[in-house]
Amino acid sequence: MTTQVLVSEVGPRDGLQSIQAVMPLEAKKAWIAAEAAAGVTEIEVGSFVPAKLLPQLADTAEVVAYARTIPGLTVAVLVPNLKGAAAAVAAGVHKITIPLSASETHSLKNVRRTHAQMLDEVRGIVALLRSLPAERRPKFEGGLSTAFGCTLEGEVPADRVVQLAGQLMEAGCDEVGLSDTTGYANPAQVKALVRRVRAVVGDHALSGLHLHNTRGLGLANVLAGLEVGISTFDSSLGGLGGCPFAPGASGNIVTEDLVFMLEAMGIGTGIDLARLLEVRHILRDALPGEAIYGFTPEAGLPLGFRSATHAETAA
Amino acid sequence: MTTQVLVSEVGPRDGLQSIQAVMPLEAKKAWIAAEAAAGVTEIEVGSFVPAKLLPQLADTAEVVAYARTIPGLTVAVLVPNLKGAAAAVAAGVHKITIPLSASETHSLKNVRRTHAQMLDEVRGIVALLRSLPAERRPKFEGGLSTAFGCTLEGEVPADRVVQLAGQLMEAGCDEVGLSDTTGYANPAQVKALVRRVRAVVGDHALSGLHLHNTRGLGLANVLAGLEVGISTFDSSLGGLGGCPFAPGASGNIVTEDLVFMLEAMGIGTGIDLARLLEVRHILRDALPGEAIYGFTPEAGLPLGFRSATHAETAA
Repeated sequence: MTTQVLVSEVGPRDGLQSIQAVMPLEAKKAWIAAEAAAGVTEIEVGSFVPAKLLPQLADTAEVVAYARTIPGLTVAVLVPNLKGAAAAVAAGVHKITIPLSASETHSLKNVRRTHAQMLDEVRGIVALLRSLPAERRPKFEGGLSTAFGCTLEGEVPADRVVQLAGQLMEAGCDEVGLSDTTGYANPAQVKALVRRVRAVVGDHALSGLHLHNTRGLGLANVLAGLEVGISTFDSSLGGLGGCPFAPGASGNIVTEDLVFMLEAMGIGTGIDLARLLEVRHILRDALPGEAIYGFTPEAGLPLGFRSATHAETAA
Repeated sequence: MTTQVLVSEVGPRDGLQSIQAVMPLEAKKAWIAAEAAAGVTEIEVGSFVPAKLLPQLADTAEVVAYARTIPGLTVAVLVPNLKGAAAAVAAGVHKITIPLSASETHSLKNVRRTHAQMLDEVRGIVALLRSLPAERRPKFEGGLSTAFGCTLEGEVPADRVVQLAGQLMEAGCDEVGLSDTTGYANPAQVKALVRRVRAVVGDHALSGLHLHNTRGLGLANVLAGLEVGISTFDSSLGGLGGCPFAPGASGNIVTEDLVFMLEAMGIGTGIDLARLLEVRHILRDALPGEAIYGFTPEAGLPLGFRSATHAETAA
């Protein structure tokens, strides 16, 4: 089992894109700074998409510029296409993820592109990235969304996910990730699919899972991932943007609960849980009326709780 | 990994004892009947405690009398002492559980008895049960509460839990169970403690876990239990009585989410999930204003969902 995990905060992108309110730039900066100060080392800070589509993320270039000033922070963004990747490169991000929906129906509806068209886009981005000097070249991940099922297609065959993962790597991605966009995954499926994809792309090319808690199985799916060697998990502070009781909503797993589980299990995240819990205030203040989730924050830490990270710090 | 699981519904006991409202007897009957009709084969229907302490469960004898008429249903109750056990036997229950808190502080506060006094009580109950003809003798479980930590003592040493489990079996219990009364458990701890207890009492003497979802780890802990051979899990329909956001509240894992996870994983429960979801209406009607939880009921089943139980039924 994994003994160190990278918790990748995606709230500033996936959380904010899922709510109506637009968070002011200064609040985004404060949020990112506070999470980094609590020990979070990778944050997906936005998405380079047309502002008319996602006004909530229209200031992504400015957010990236700020986030890059935080020492030790990996600044990640999502891009839907080559144009977005070019903007991401110009902004100086450290990591770019392009989503490729394993459900072609979903892909057509979401970005109006077939799998073949998306793979062409990926090759275009790879060409761009390879034209850069190595020290300015962001890491490039292909994120397989709807990998565990689709609200439009239903079951998504594992064969197709495995094939697309191989094609993304052939196209030049540095790594692939699997996303349970729809909250359909179960722990047995997580284990089976991770093993199958790794058999094709190699263990090191699949390190991350993006899980949702739509049906309450988010942390059980994390545990399943841990047990097959996954070491990076996306999550959203306060489960932002993911009303678990609203079908179709994002429903990211809650960063606070994820970190609590990992640290309680003795798996180090490098994150100071008490400080992380305090970051919720920034969300509450900047997004009045928006639902903020999380079991651990509400119940509090167990009496005498010892975190793996603190134990390590003390050692 | 376990391929068949017994889901033991504890809502009529643990759920109802945790809320202020008193559910009418007729509603309890309807609830129990509807869950049994959906395929639930074990229900903890009440507790034989003084009515002044728990007026919500004052009609337990009548509930037992009714539940016994349902073919194939194991009718279980909780008892705090010999007097309660005698009442349970008189009512004709199939299974009796006595809670023994691994935290002696909690035991003293909860039932005003030390561990030694509780073990005496257990021996008294065993003597009573052994005086009965075999066909009228209920199964007798010692339920180790606060087994994963205590809100009063903090960490509960695993050594003590293992020792008490051995003492419960020596005193004559048929089996022991482990309860995360406080929602402190994490998956690594679940696996480690189950293995240690089983090493002392034998695999067959520890089959069940009673888990709470206070910090959102309930289903992850179920997965951990499954992976070390646990085959019985307690849960509460609608998470009744367990406001996850109220520290100290029960917070039982939600039956609907538990069954969804198991069935999605291909683990048969014998429960028809669609019918189970309909039972929630009984709770809503009988307990107006009471919070009813569950992710799966709100999000709905995935498109094209296939349950293990249905697949088996069709085969």
